[in-house]
Amino acid sequence: MIDINKAIEGLDWNRAPRGLYEPIEYTLASGGKRLRPTLTLIAAETIMNGGLLNGDAIEHVLPAALALEVFHNFTLLHDDVMDKAEVRRGRPTVHVKWNDNTAILSGDQMLIEAYKLLSDVPADKLPQVLKWFNEMATGICEGQQYDVDFEHMSQVSIDDYMMMIEKKTSVLLAYAMKIGGYIAGATPEQQEALYQYGLHIGLAFQIQDDILDVYGDPKTFGKAIGGDILCNKKTFLLLTALENADAESKAELLQWLMATDCDKEKIAAVTALYNRLGVREAGETVMEEHTAEALAQLDKLPQNKATEQLRELAEQLVTRTK
Amino acid sequence: MIDINKAIEGLDWNRAPRGLYEPIEYTLASGGKRLRPTLTLIAAETIMNGGLLNGDAIEHVLPAALALEVFHNFTLLHDDVMDKAEVRRGRPTVHVKWNDNTAILSGDQMLIEAYKLLSDVPADKLPQVLKWFNEMATGICEGQQYDVDFEHMSQVSIDDYMMMIEKKTSVLLAYAMKIGGYIAGATPEQQEALYQYGLHIGLAFQIQDDILDVYGDPKTFGKAIGGDILCNKKTFLLLTALENADAESKAELLQWLMATDCDKEKIAAVTALYNRLGVREAGETVMEEHTAEALAQLDKLPQNKATEQLRELAEQLVTRTK
Repeated sequence: MIDINKAIEGLDWNRAPRGLYEPIEYTLASGGKRLRPTLTLIAAETIMNGGLLNGDAIEHVLPAALALEVFHNFTLLHDDVMDKAEVRRGRPTVHVKWNDNTAILSGDQMLIEAYKLLSDVPADKLPQVLKWFNEMATGICEGQQYDVDFEHMSQVSIDDYMMMIEKKTSVLLAYAMKIGGYIAGATPEQQEALYQYGLHIGLAFQIQDDILDVYGDPKTFGKAIGGDILCNKKTFLLLTALENADAESKAELLQWLMATDCDKEKIAAVTALYNRLGVREAGETVMEEHTAEALAQLDKLPQNKATEQLRELAEQLVTRTK
Repeated sequence: MIDINKAIEGLDWNRAPRGLYEPIEYTLASGGKRLRPTLTLIAAETIMNGGLLNGDAIEHVLPAALALEVFHNFTLLHDDVMDKAEVRRGRPTVHVKWNDNTAILSGDQMLIEAYKLLSDVPADKLPQVLKWFNEMATGICEGQQYDVDFEHMSQVSIDDYMMMIEKKTSVLLAYAMKIGGYIAGATPEQQEALYQYGLHIGLAFQIQDDILDVYGDPKTFGKAIGGDILCNKKTFLLLTALENADAESKAELLQWLMATDCDKEKIAAVTALYNRLGVREAGETVMEEHTAEALAQLDKLPQNKATEQLRELAEQLVTRTK
């Protein structure tokens, strides 16, 4: 397959004014999994029956793949301002290295750059791809808003939470798949299977993220364990604990949620409560259900090397440690 | 002509989550001149030989007109955060009424909404319109960055300034015209004339803005006179004064630029220097040149009621008082 990192490095940001484009270059050079454009390209390969993407085929699919990656990085840039996050992928965030205004404006330009890349989608496919891209982008913003809203709500159901992460995380993976397949000529049924695959691995991915934040190996996880617990983040684990707990455990949990200045004790106590309430197992069950659902979608697609890659990718998600 | 205000009011923002969409509704309900969508519609009417836009014709042009207005309001929303502006069109700005994060996220969604509207441009015209829209949006962000850069530069030439306002203000008016004409079937020569008309009225408009900020009638201007002088804004007037001044006047001007805590005196003294150096007349000359250039473009277009409206609009710009 085409080297997506090279394609991203190949984007030319050597333009004036530097104050606008340098932070974009910086953001895109910071690495990351490149999961979204990879999904777009593999989805296209699957539909082309495992045919290697080259020549015209690459030119048709690559703009959308790059647009999705640039868009994803735009959301991280603006999220980091809103969350006051200081580090991303081991480097200072843009609003720390420069300032908030730079992060806002360069982020805006990055969103526009995503649409510029998208405008190179073949003309006959562009109207549909643009509509889906807009739906995806809307989902992300709505998901982000729900995430903010949930912080201030005393009661959030697990259904609410699943709806939120579907918008905030899964819809981008779902459309990355669907758009790649559509450009490569997928039938409506195949498009739907690709979409559902992306949606379900996204949900599994996010729940695994919640689990790793508590149960991950500090050596491989890359960030401090228990961060979600310390900031009382309404994760799948916390919401499940609140939903499953008897009165006594619930009181104890709520007590710990109010605790500050005792980080180690708080992490240990909440983790012990999670263990007692079996929330890790509950999370793993839901995660495995979504992984199974994603895998089932693949049966509706041509079976080839690319489909095999998608199968491996879904299975890796469940067993990943970082 | 179709009532553009009604069309904007007709956009439905009654969606969840409210925290995302309420600020968008609030921003678009705050009025404004609706100059950009009006230009798009008149440009289309001119090309259709003054034919009233109705039925299919409206459906073809309106999405782009609305996209441009939503985009323009998005730029105001984010600009107000970056400038820490507290009032816009007589009402608290979004980041004051809500908070910075809301202004960032709802602004992002507003930019996406502009692209959603744009996706309803007829499919055969969409690829070209999307490319132009992206160029326009890029120009605005680049212009905003130059504006910020200029604040920190000791030397800014009038050429630099004109380049900046061309990007920050004119390009949007230019593309509003060109896109409207293109959708209505303008020839490449007509498209270029429409573009140039928009570009030159934009330049005239911005210089008139700079003049009114110093020489406007407080009763009609709507904001305090001398605001640009107080914050040492590098306007056409200040840059011309710095360029035209002899050593003595320049020293006096630079002295006043450093003055604080003496608002009335500073405004009076700088205005007196402007009077002595004839910068108002210099501004009016350049403004009139651009207005004349805009009017000259109209001769290349079909002559009809809509072209007449464009002629009146250009002339109104030169004589406007607010």
